[in-house]
This record gives sequence, C-alpha cells and structure tokens, in this order.
Amino acid sequence: MRFELTRDFLNELEEAIVKNDIKWIEESIFNLHVADIASVIDELDNQSANFIYKLLDEERQADVLIELDEDIREDLLKTFSTKEIARQLENLDSDDAADVIAELPKDKVEEVISHITDDEAAEDIVDLLNYDEDSAGGLMQKEFIKAKLDWPVNRCVVELRRQAENVEKVFTIYVVDNDDRLVGFLSLKSLLFASPNTKISDLFQDRNMISVKTNDDSEEVAKIMEKYDLVSVPVVDLQNKLVGRITIDDVVDVIKEEADKDFQMASGISEMVEASDSIWRISRARMPWLLIGMLGGILGAQVISGFEGGISEVPALAFFIPLITAMGGNVGVQSSAIVVQSLAKGNDQFGSILKKILKESLVGIVNGLVLSIIIYGIGHAFESPVLGIVVSLSLFTVMLFAAIFGTLIPLLLDKYNIDPALATGPFITTLNDVLGLFIYLTIGVLLYGI
Amino acid sequence: MRFELTRDFLNELEEAIVKNDIKWIEESIFNLHVADIASVIDELDNQSANFIYKLLDEERQADVLIELDEDIREDLLKTFSTKEIARQLENLDSDDAADVIAELPKDKVEEVISHITDDEAAEDIVDLLNYDEDSAGGLMQKEFIKAKLDWPVNRCVVELRRQAENVEKVFTIYVVDNDDRLVGFLSLKSLLFASPNTKISDLFQDRNMISVKTNDDSEEVAKIMEKYDLVSVPVVDLQNKLVGRITIDDVVDVIKEEADKDFQMASGISEMVEASDSIWRISRARMPWLLIGMLGGILGAQVISGFEGGISEVPALAFFIPLITAMGGNVGVQSSAIVVQSLAKGNDQFGSILKKILKESLVGIVNGLVLSIIIYGIGHAFESPVLGIVVSLSLFTVMLFAAIFGTLIPLLLDKYNIDPALATGPFITTLNDVLGLFIYLTIGVLLYGI
Repeated sequence: MRFELTRDFLNELEEAIVKNDIKWIEESIFNLHVADIASVIDELDNQSANFIYKLLDEERQADVLIELDEDIREDLLKTFSTKEIARQLENLDSDDAADVIAELPKDKVEEVISHITDDEAAEDIVDLLNYDEDSAGGLMQKEFIKAKLDWPVNRCVVELRRQAENVEKVFTIYVVDNDDRLVGFLSLKSLLFASPNTKISDLFQDRNMISVKTNDDSEEVAKIMEKYDLVSVPVVDLQNKLVGRITIDDVVDVIKEEADKDFQMASGISEMVEASDSIWRISRARMPWLLIGMLGGILGAQVISGFEGGISEVPALAFFIPLITAMGGNVGVQSSAIVVQSLAKGNDQFGSILKKILKESLVGIVNGLVLSIIIYGIGHAFESPVLGIVVSLSLFTVMLFAAIFGTLIPLLLDKYNIDPALATGPFITTLNDVLGLFIYLTIGVLLYGI
Repeated sequence: MRFELTRDFLNELEEAIVKNDIKWIEESIFNLHVADIASVIDELDNQSANFIYKLLDEERQADVLIELDEDIREDLLKTFSTKEIARQLENLDSDDAADVIAELPKDKVEEVISHITDDEAAEDIVDLLNYDEDSAGGLMQKEFIKAKLDWPVNRCVVELRRQAENVEKVFTIYVVDNDDRLVGFLSLKSLLFASPNTKISDLFQDRNMISVKTNDDSEEVAKIMEKYDLVSVPVVDLQNKLVGRITIDDVVDVIKEEADKDFQMASGISEMVEASDSIWRISRARMPWLLIGMLGGILGAQVISGFEGGISEVPALAFFIPLITAMGGNVGVQSSAIVVQSLAKGNDQFGSILKKILKESLVGIVNGLVLSIIIYGIGHAFESPVLGIVVSLSLFTVMLFAAIFGTLIPLLLDKYNIDPALATGPFITTLNDVLGLFIYLTIGVLLYGI
C-alpha cells in the first residue's frame, strides 16, 4: 500500500494536532515510510512540524530529517541544541550527516561535531566536509564493506558481520591489498555460495573494476554510473587507496539537479532557484538574461531606426516585425536545443560540424518553404503582393540563418569549453532578432524601391 | 583505469581493420567493458562495426548489443539470421531481450521467438511483450529471486543458488506466500548472517514494503524509486502476485528521457527526436510550434495594423516593437519555467494559486522597475522624452502581465490535467507578444496624443 498525501489527510492531521490527539497521530503517521513522514511534515507550519517531529523516536527522527526540504530542516534544527543535533547525526550515514552539518550556521558546526560521541564517526564527517560538494568526495559516504585479498571466505564473513552493522545497504564488497589499495570487487552473491576456506584472492574480480577519484566532478560520476549501469561505485584517493563509496540514489539526485539546471538555463534563469526562494534571489537570478534580452531589443531599435524613412513611407512594413523576430528566435532555439542535448549525451562526438550544419539547414529549408508559402498569402491580404513577397522571402532567409546560427553557436561554445546550454535561451534569440530585422527591412526597402 | 574514446584510437582501429590486424584489435578491444566496446562500435561505419562485433564471443555480443545505439543495433541485426538473433537473446536478461525483439521488423518477431530453445525464457519474453513500454510491466524483468515464507534459511540458500544463476544482480530477496503473493522482503545481508534453521517468516520484513503494479506508469515508477531511495522494486499484478522486478539502471534511463522531453518541449519541439533522426522527422517535430509562433506573429501584425496611422505619424514607435515582444516573452518563459518545475517535483502542491501569482508579480515588479528606469534613458536618447516614457511605462506593464500569465497558465493547464510543460516555449511567448504589442502601442498613441 502506497501512501498518497491529500488535502483531507492534512486537514485531519492539523485538527488532531490542535486537539492533541496523540493516538490518531501515532496510528496514521508512525507506520508510514520515513520519506512519507517527511513529505507530510514538509506541508505543515513550523509549529506543527516541530510537534510531529518530536513525537518520533530518535532513529526515525534522523531518517526523516534527511528527507525534509532544506528550508524546513533548517527551521527544525534551530529548535534543537547542538548536543541534540549531534545525537541525531550519529544515526545518519556519514554523507548525510556531513550534508546536514554543511547547512548549519558556521558558528554551530564545531560545537555540534564536538558533541558527537563516536570518535570515528566524527572523524569521518570532518573528513567529508573537506571535499567540494560537487565532487565525488562530496558525494561519497564512509560506510562501505571491504575485504582483504588474503582473507579466507569465513574470516571475510565474520569481518563483514562486524562492518555491516554500520552499512545500511550492501551491494558490493570491495577488495583491497595490504596497503588499502583497491584491487577488485566481490559480489555478496558469490560470497554466499563460496566454500568457507576459499581465499578472497581466488574469488574476487578485477576485470572491469570501475572506480572514481575523490576529485572527479559529480556530473562525471553520474555519467560513469549511468554508462556502466552501476548501483554503487568505489571512491579512491590519488594513491588509489579506497576511501569511500557513492550509491546510485545520491547520483539520481545529481542527474535530476543537472536536468533542472539545463531546463532553467534554457528558460533564461542563470542560478539554480526554486519556487520557494526569496523574491530577491529569484529576481537576481533572472536579471542577467533580461539584460541580454533588453540589449538585443536596443540593438533591434538601432536597426529599425536605420530604416525610419522606409517605415514612415510604408508603415505596413512594421506589421511583420514581431513575426520575423519571433520565428528567428523559435527556429534558433529549436536547432540549438537538439545540438545541446546531443553534446550533453556525448553522442556522435566525432561527426563533422559541417555535416550537422548542413542537416539543420535542410530542416530550416523544409520548414521555411512551407511557412513562407503560407505567409505570402497573408502578407498579400494585409496590404499588397509586394508585402507578401517581402515577408515571405525574408521569413525563409531568417529561418535558414537561424538554423545555421542555432547549430553553430553551441558547437563553438563547446569547442572552447563553455557550457553550450548557455546558447539556448535568450542569447540565440537575441542574436537572431537583430539579424532577422536587418534582413527583413533590407529586403523590404529594396523590393518597395524606397 | 577508465577507457577514454579518442579520435586517435578510432583512427588506429580503422587502420587495424583495413590491415586485418586481429591481434591489435583483440588486445585493445577485448579487455574493455562492454559499455566501452559498444561506444567504440557506435562510432564505426556499418561494415567495420559488423567486423568487430563478429569477433566477440557470443555472451559478450549480447551484452554489447543491448548497449549499442538503437539505429546501429538495427543495422547490425539485419546481418543476422533469425536463429542467430535468438541465440543472442538467450544471453540477455528478459527485459533487454524483449526490448530488442520489440525493435525488430514485425514479420521477424515470431520467427526469432520460435528459435529460442529455452522455453521458459521464450515465455517470459512473450509475456513482457504484452505490456505497454511506458508502464512498469514494460520496464520489468522476469529475473528476480524469491523465497517462500515457510522455508528455513538453509533451504533458501540452496534455492537461491539455483535461481541466482539467471539473476545477474541480486539486491533484495522477495518473500511470497504459498499463492505467490508478495508479502515482504529480505536483504541478502540478513540471510548471510542468519543461522541455517531460522525460518524466513521470522527473518523477513514487511514494514515499508514498496511495490508497483504492472500497469503503473513508468514515470510514476521513477518517482517512487527516487522518493524511497530504492535500487530495485518488485512488480505485482492486480492480484498482488509477484511477476517481476525493476532495477534502478532502467529507471535512470526513464528519468533522463523525461528530462530530455521536458527540455525539448520548452525549446518548442513536440516529439522526442534525436540529432540522428531523419530530416523529415525533425522537420515535422518542429512544425507545430513554428505554426503557433507564426499565428502569434500574424495576430501581432493584426494589432500593429490597427495602429497604422499612429506609426505613419511617429515611425519611432516601431523602433521598440522587438524589445517589447522579446521582454514579454522572456519574462513569461522564466515565470512558467519555475512553476512547471515545481509542479513536476510535486512541491508545495497545496499552496494557493493566488500566493504564487502574487510572488511572481513582485518579482516582475522588481525587475520591471530596474529595467524600465534604464530603458527610459535609452528611449529618450533615441528620439524624445515622450518615447522614453512610452517605452518605460509599457515595458513595466508588459513585464508585470507576462509574469502573471507565465504563472497562471501552467497552473491552469495542470488543474485540467494538461502537461504544464506545454506552457513554456512558444505558447506563452506568443500570447505575451500579442498582449505586449497592444499595451505598448496603446500607451504610445495615448501619450503622443495621436
């Protein structure tokens, strides 16, 4: 049975909180999965969230804590002493504990760490705090299971039993040599079926051992786990010593965040923001693109003002200005979106640029032909056959140019190691606007013989 | 050591193929991970791809096959007899085998299945072909490990050994009752540490058992696995009988595809296309949005033609037409992107619509104020203080309206169960273009007293 959060459920819960109906709350909340409890608490006001949270036992508190929205978690933790926070962190995996600590106000961090009674755990957390949050080191956890090459299977099982207490999900056992260097891996399955005296060195696999380095970028880690279909990947330091592991659930979050960032960038938002962020933060994140858009508009005004005489003679030329700019923008964004996506996937990285531009040009020609035939009739109806020809001819030209620029610019950006996702969104639109206006008005002035 | 595909490596390989230097090929290719071999073959021409592929042993052929790009796989399979294809499928997991079969030409499907010698495998594949490819049934595989409630641990280990031969990655053991109904699960770890005579019924967990139904949508499956941090999820039929499992690697693909689709939709591409698709297919996928954009442009022309007299008197009014339409479009897309993302995540689903619109309006006012002050100076410089006031006032108004519509439209679409991602891209841009033009020219005509 999966839990479905509804408005009705929230109403009932809020009522139960007001009436202090602990029994109802225990029956309806305490059997839920921690992720569901967190999703309920996310929807409550501060005070109710606090009330429910404090009813949970300590271990579940920790599990719920890590599932909460960042701002709700921040509010909750403010109501705890540093000692209480430390106790909750002890129930978390090292990577989650480090993430929570990294969110705390700077002056509290040291105090919280000093209250962690398990020295090894405290050390792990301090170590993890050193890594950049967008690196493999920032993603990894210190909980993993390792076996030494010269162990027999029965010793391995005994050691595992000891280690496994701290490791919630065991996927793979990493095999190290006497210097703690990663040499291979072992599936739990093969251990389960091996005879007790077999040596690990006769059982482990080293072919196709995939690992990442602590300073690898988190996007790179995501790409590797995706490519090789891994559920966990060991992390080694520069000397190839095993220092941690990254599990797929954390990487799924990286993939989602990456997709969100691309989507926002394509929509003209320059920083990662969420709907719940402050008005200032949201405004600031949008400003750069709006400024680029406005600069484009000013350049456009400059182009049109160069044709002021023409427009005052044939005002009908102004009618199709928005059509030309809009279509140039749309075609440019479409072309660049395909290129950006194919670059992000690493597809066809060795295909020639010329071939891609040729293909996009052909698409531009096909669609341009269809639309310019339609628009001829409409331009004709608006004013005269001349206007029809002007609009039709320039629409076709603009679409062709937009397709070429939309393909070329992201490819060039990528060549110079600039994120090609910058190319979609207002940047390409703006360029095509200005170019489109120039083409349109030039053709207009020429054909009208002004 | 991770393999890095380079242009140099491809050149060397192509040379080796021409020289028939099997030794070099074996040394440099055969030790690679199957995913890397596939990425090499993806970059080769048909004939070379075929040559390399046929050098691999049968098991690796199958593993490489499933990692290849769809069109490369299609070309390769054309060179095999139905019997040979069947042999390769036998080395694949049932879900992968079903995926490959689903890509074959219809007239070959039956023949291939008839050549599969393992009857059980053939049955599994035929069963999987019945499910919609975007459902849990279409994602699941028939390879999983199950244990019965009344087994003792030692019987379970023996049975597992038998079952595990077919199951490449074991994450969780599913526990069923005598009617094959899913009742809970068991970690491999707990089995490893349990004493041989313990009953499964004393060992298994049923709390927080998450499963999906065969007809659940694949996006829903992805959301569930993400929310509950699962690496695999059991699939049950309508009677709660265990019929398959879905592993996280397949779901990662769903998440990526979903993100690609959203990105393309925001960029005005209506069908999932890839850079490698045919020119016709790409052209067709882009046409709907271009038609909407053109319709918007025609409506814009209609609006401007209503002000023809004003423009012929003050042609400078035409200068800022592109600026007004571009800014309305940009603001609208930004606002809608945030709403669409927050809807997709299911965040804040119970917040009021009015509150969201108020917030977006405030962001619009902040950015509108800053930009309209700048543009006043520029309009003034272009022609006169009056033009400065006209552009400044209308820019502010347009940005405010665009923010409101950008928020409102995706929320409304979502309310009526239409994908709100439709709202970003040309749709909102077009609406704001037309509205913006009307506001701008009306203010212009009024302030110029035309």
